[in-house]
Amino acid sequence: MAGQPPATKGMSLYDIQTPALVIDLAALEYNISKLAGIVKAQGNGVTLRPHVKAHKSVEIAQCQIRAGSTGVCCQTVGEAETMVEGGILDILLSNEIIGQGKAGRLARLAQRSKITVCVDDAAQVNDLSAAATQQSIILNVLVEIDVGAARCGVLPGVPAVELARYVAAKPGLRFAGLQAYHGAAQHLRKPAERAEAIVQAATLTRATVAALQHAGLACDVVTGGGTGTFGNELVSGVYTELQCGSYALMDADYQKNDSDIIFKNALFVLATVISAPTPGRAVCDAGLKALSIDSGLPEIHALPNVVYQTASDEHGTLQTNDVSLAIGSKILLIPGHCDPTVNMHDWLVPIRDGKVETPWHVARAR
Amino acid sequence: MAGQPPATKGMSLYDIQTPALVIDLAALEYNISKLAGIVKAQGNGVTLRPHVKAHKSVEIAQCQIRAGSTGVCCQTVGEAETMVEGGILDILLSNEIIGQGKAGRLARLAQRSKITVCVDDAAQVNDLSAAATQQSIILNVLVEIDVGAARCGVLPGVPAVELARYVAAKPGLRFAGLQAYHGAAQHLRKPAERAEAIVQAATLTRATVAALQHAGLACDVVTGGGTGTFGNELVSGVYTELQCGSYALMDADYQKNDSDIIFKNALFVLATVISAPTPGRAVCDAGLKALSIDSGLPEIHALPNVVYQTASDEHGTLQTNDVSLAIGSKILLIPGHCDPTVNMHDWLVPIRDGKVETPWHVARAR
Repeated sequence: MAGQPPATKGMSLYDIQTPALVIDLAALEYNISKLAGIVKAQGNGVTLRPHVKAHKSVEIAQCQIRAGSTGVCCQTVGEAETMVEGGILDILLSNEIIGQGKAGRLARLAQRSKITVCVDDAAQVNDLSAAATQQSIILNVLVEIDVGAARCGVLPGVPAVELARYVAAKPGLRFAGLQAYHGAAQHLRKPAERAEAIVQAATLTRATVAALQHAGLACDVVTGGGTGTFGNELVSGVYTELQCGSYALMDADYQKNDSDIIFKNALFVLATVISAPTPGRAVCDAGLKALSIDSGLPEIHALPNVVYQTASDEHGTLQTNDVSLAIGSKILLIPGHCDPTVNMHDWLVPIRDGKVETPWHVARAR
Repeated sequence: MAGQPPATKGMSLYDIQTPALVIDLAALEYNISKLAGIVKAQGNGVTLRPHVKAHKSVEIAQCQIRAGSTGVCCQTVGEAETMVEGGILDILLSNEIIGQGKAGRLARLAQRSKITVCVDDAAQVNDLSAAATQQSIILNVLVEIDVGAARCGVLPGVPAVELARYVAAKPGLRFAGLQAYHGAAQHLRKPAERAEAIVQAATLTRATVAALQHAGLACDVVTGGGTGTFGNELVSGVYTELQCGSYALMDADYQKNDSDIIFKNALFVLATVISAPTPGRAVCDAGLKALSIDSGLPEIHALPNVVYQTASDEHGTLQTNDVSLAIGSKILLIPGHCDPTVNMHDWLVPIRDGKVETPWHVARAR
């Protein structure tokens, strides 16, 4: 039902039917190896649990596991199902779920993999406990605390302790620790801004861990961090696990962060120039259905003088300036935001030395 | 590979696994019937060829054919393949394609359906002629002219005549007329602005038709128009065919057009409130991967005091104000832009009288 892949193994990059998502395997492997090396070199016991929500690919997750991670983060039950199907044995659903439908699906996965999930309300706990009891399995549960992102999460301190106590008393559940992810800090441009946000998050988290210990609740896991801030969580002394995801693929928005640690763009939208009606303007076949513009318009790889000016449904209008872009030319676009861009495609086309490797399926199920 | 549908026939709306796209069948049928009636009532021979790029659904296309259309518009070869597979016998690819890959796929479809395609350059004509000759079929070709949208299309007048002549001389191709679609005019808010833009487009188109006739080239088809402007093309005296697409589903952005003709919102993203961590804030499970925000954030059906404030990958953060939205509550979101929102999903879930009908597959192939 996902349709044919836009390419087959051995094909040249330029024969792929466009628009298509292509992966520079050398850059992907560089990124995965680089972050695994940084985390390992720190030597303080903090582990990396890469987030798969950006790539939704079993093959990339397996590459991350081979680099030393013992498990992955997912954001939807559908992603978790795909990862378990693909042989990943330790999954954190770094999100809240509600209802017997999703809780039941998650509990069934615990028969084959270690499953951990977040809560920020007793209602979620009740559904998870009922599903776990019915399936006769144990779900590991993290209380999510809001450390500044103003999205999900109970307040740090007493509300977190109360919810942890509620979890610990419920059949089928094991209280395992805290999620303290600061999403809003990831895209702060200056290192000092990101560092300050994570110092504040770590302070709130440390106080909550202490309060849990005081209440007799062991807090084995403190998970958080992302591609923007992981260096700060890594040295915080309170986080035990990092959840970085975008580092593997990168995107134009993350590249705008001022940072010492450089990851490479591994994800591109391959597009074809389908029209060049007038000097200075060309139109490519990658628009709003091939890339997400929520974090800005794409950049054009290796053509700094060409500007992607407007995205419509199936078209990108390019200002070509002094560059000659004939009809039929292929261009590589660096999307503004990798996660929602991957979500528009059914296939990732891995490229090594200009040649297509076997395409990877994108798991878009919810 | 598209995964299980999020619902099965007979299920209640509130048991669908979220986020999911739902279709209010009564509203869809109202919209389809309403526009078909308006075009028919005009009685001037102008026909409606609905665009499927918004819904990408064979079932909705068939509903539009039953309402009196003889064919549809597609924007990608993949959409055209799906429509031909679904029994639609007359397809206009209202877009340019280049390369033997796509030209070959399109030409193969002409063995089973009438196929028309747009060009704005000799390079496209050459590829189409080669593919048509190889498949021993005839492709009908429209020359696209730029009537103000500044995207694809040759200039009206002499450049259009020259390209039409080039088409007419090529084996395997039949010059069939003009595409004169003014995309940029569709979302002008005031009726007078839209009318003025289409008067200008029609003037340029009329002059081009006259120049073609002067050159001995019959111009059977002049196609264009959309949900925002169709009333203007309908009475222009030069357009023979309308390409409206969004009218069937509608979206929040089109509803902001000041217009006498009201279509109903038939497309909703069903979402679940998964977190309500603090008074005034709730978080639902429909974010950037479930709806497109290129034309603005979604509105919330029947809850005017709740504001969708921020979209992140898998979350929508809601400002609930005085409304109580418990965890587990279902909400219906009206997306800002229907086309790229549908493109994020594999399934449309049709609803009649609060009950699920058999889900429809979304054809996302390129």
